[in-house]
Amino acid sequence: MYRTFCHVGNGCRARRTPPAARIWTQLWCLIRKEEVQSFIERCMTAVGTKQHHACSLAKVLVEGDHRGHYSHGLNRMDMYVKDIKSGICAKDGEPVLEKESAATALVDGRNLLGPVVGNFCMNLAIQKAKEVGVGWVVARGSNHYGIAGYYAMQALKENMIGMSFTNTSPLVVPTRGKACTLGTNPISVAAPAKDGDSFVLDMATSAVALGKVELHDRRNDPIPEGWGCDADGKMSTDPKKVLNGGGLVPIGGSEATGGYKGFGLGMMVEVFCGILAGAHYSNNVRTWKVTDRVADLGQCFVAINPENFAPEFNKRMSDLLSIQREMDAADPDCPVLTAGDPERMNMKKCDDLGGIPYHINVVNHMNEEAKKVGVSELLPVDKLISI
Amino acid sequence: MYRTFCHVGNGCRARRTPPAARIWTQLWCLIRKEEVQSFIERCMTAVGTKQHHACSLAKVLVEGDHRGHYSHGLNRMDMYVKDIKSGICAKDGEPVLEKESAATALVDGRNLLGPVVGNFCMNLAIQKAKEVGVGWVVARGSNHYGIAGYYAMQALKENMIGMSFTNTSPLVVPTRGKACTLGTNPISVAAPAKDGDSFVLDMATSAVALGKVELHDRRNDPIPEGWGCDADGKMSTDPKKVLNGGGLVPIGGSEATGGYKGFGLGMMVEVFCGILAGAHYSNNVRTWKVTDRVADLGQCFVAINPENFAPEFNKRMSDLLSIQREMDAADPDCPVLTAGDPERMNMKKCDDLGGIPYHINVVNHMNEEAKKVGVSELLPVDKLISI
Repeated sequence: MYRTFCHVGNGCRARRTPPAARIWTQLWCLIRKEEVQSFIERCMTAVGTKQHHACSLAKVLVEGDHRGHYSHGLNRMDMYVKDIKSGICAKDGEPVLEKESAATALVDGRNLLGPVVGNFCMNLAIQKAKEVGVGWVVARGSNHYGIAGYYAMQALKENMIGMSFTNTSPLVVPTRGKACTLGTNPISVAAPAKDGDSFVLDMATSAVALGKVELHDRRNDPIPEGWGCDADGKMSTDPKKVLNGGGLVPIGGSEATGGYKGFGLGMMVEVFCGILAGAHYSNNVRTWKVTDRVADLGQCFVAINPENFAPEFNKRMSDLLSIQREMDAADPDCPVLTAGDPERMNMKKCDDLGGIPYHINVVNHMNEEAKKVGVSELLPVDKLISI
Repeated sequence: MYRTFCHVGNGCRARRTPPAARIWTQLWCLIRKEEVQSFIERCMTAVGTKQHHACSLAKVLVEGDHRGHYSHGLNRMDMYVKDIKSGICAKDGEPVLEKESAATALVDGRNLLGPVVGNFCMNLAIQKAKEVGVGWVVARGSNHYGIAGYYAMQALKENMIGMSFTNTSPLVVPTRGKACTLGTNPISVAAPAKDGDSFVLDMATSAVALGKVELHDRRNDPIPEGWGCDADGKMSTDPKKVLNGGGLVPIGGSEATGGYKGFGLGMMVEVFCGILAGAHYSNNVRTWKVTDRVADLGQCFVAINPENFAPEFNKRMSDLLSIQREMDAADPDCPVLTAGDPERMNMKKCDDLGGIPYHINVVNHMNEEAKKVGVSELLPVDKLISI
């Protein structure tokens, strides 16, 4: 989706480098995807993760960075390292199929890394959709699984629609409430168009991600109205109030502008995840970044086979995307983008550069983490670039 | 969902009657549900609609009014009468099953009334969910089907999760765009809790319904920022600009507050409906209230059987609802409501009153319409009440 602070851009042409990006110039380090992949694998296996589990995790994190979602990439590796090292997340075993029909499955994630559970479930959903047109698979006993879109997009390889949902730690305050009882509970839906083109929705059901509020806080900038509320449940433009006792608000913002719809969507995700799977849910999910107990997240994975419906699905999908992309834009320099377009632009930029640009502070921090767990081959820090 | 202008209330205690409601006092006419049901049936059969089709339509419209969604009830009857009378909507025939698997179906609605198509599809989805845990049914060749929630809620009777989606005439301007290329494309999800309690999300993917903007226009009131934009795609608080050449904006409002998420959700609904079904889609759907050609709407109906997943679904659902409803509210007089609660309160109020309160102007208008098509038994206009 569009990202206000992605350094690579939001699809607007003829925009000058924003002030913040100018400050960042020279502080970015270009690293090849393969190098990041193997670095994460080394760090994870160093603390005892099975090789193919480490590989699965690394792929999701690298994909997150490649698509421009740095909050769900390498930047989060230390959280996974810590979870495995402390034993709060299982380092061995495989997900277990508990209950199954031709179109559905319930999976016990056995407290394994989220991507291990996610891949298992999404593969199962796709197999079922091949056979009966739809596969609806839910997992309990899972952990953070990176970007939701990674799993939904697996279905694109089979020319199917994919969906993925997860519940998360409570960070969102319901409309009229004043306590966090829902996570940012993302929804991802991917649908294939012609010639490899696609629609890829991957959105939190909160107005914004927590990271955006944190960024404003670090800069001492106010946040826009409609992002978060204070400890009394009142909408606030002060990031400190949102971060200390307040919370994010659902997409839609206040009650007057339809925040109750975002609240309803967050609840819908919880129904598909924690409630259907028998996992933790709502404010029973552990506090964000507090790993005092297992996460037991609930997740949901769906595949739908267009072959079971009207012919020429891909052709119509391409037309639907074209209608939006080709319409006159309110600002001719900022074309209309469909879900997945900003990520596609980000990936192209990375590919043209020959790697993913990481802030040097992130690279240094991750190398420190790697040393702590005894990894000697570190990420390269010498390829500084100007963006 | 919460409704700013519902005369019956938005769940806030100790609120005085708002100024607008004071003006309306004495102008409401109380009519029993059964009387509205048979009146709509009489009007529809008078123009040649089959009796059981007329009955299906009347049930959905009465349910809309009973739940407080007057924009989708009796108020719209003349549109359906006109569609049947002009022959733009088919008065005879039944939906046809075109393609089927154990879990999916593609249905040709044969240009029949939306509720006839909707009931056929939702029943099919429920049957499939009984057998394989999930049923995913899409229809092309359909028409306006009233409130989306009506179909989702059918699944509650079988203790299942129900979903319903429809595309609609273009009224929504995508983020960054300046033309209406999407309808208000609603999402409905219903999930059963214990003892008849439930979660019923029924929301347009636009920030608000068109009717709310029209109401502000009639009163010469500005609309809140984040509801609509002008013909240049700029956010506007002038309802006239939104209604004349502009449009509604997706839930989330502007790009800064996450409007692109609502745009993505509207597109998701279009993927499930027009694109999967091979119906009209996006700006190919006919203009709102212009019936120069068949609607050929696409609709999607889903049933999910909790029995195929973790035991004690209803118990967890009830707990999830209680966590939200029982939390401290920002304003103690306005308790936190979950999706479906405002409608439940509205229904209780109607049931306590012994009927549905309609504005006398609506009743008079509908009686005029009935006379035009030769219906002699009209709605009673003598039961005026103060609310």
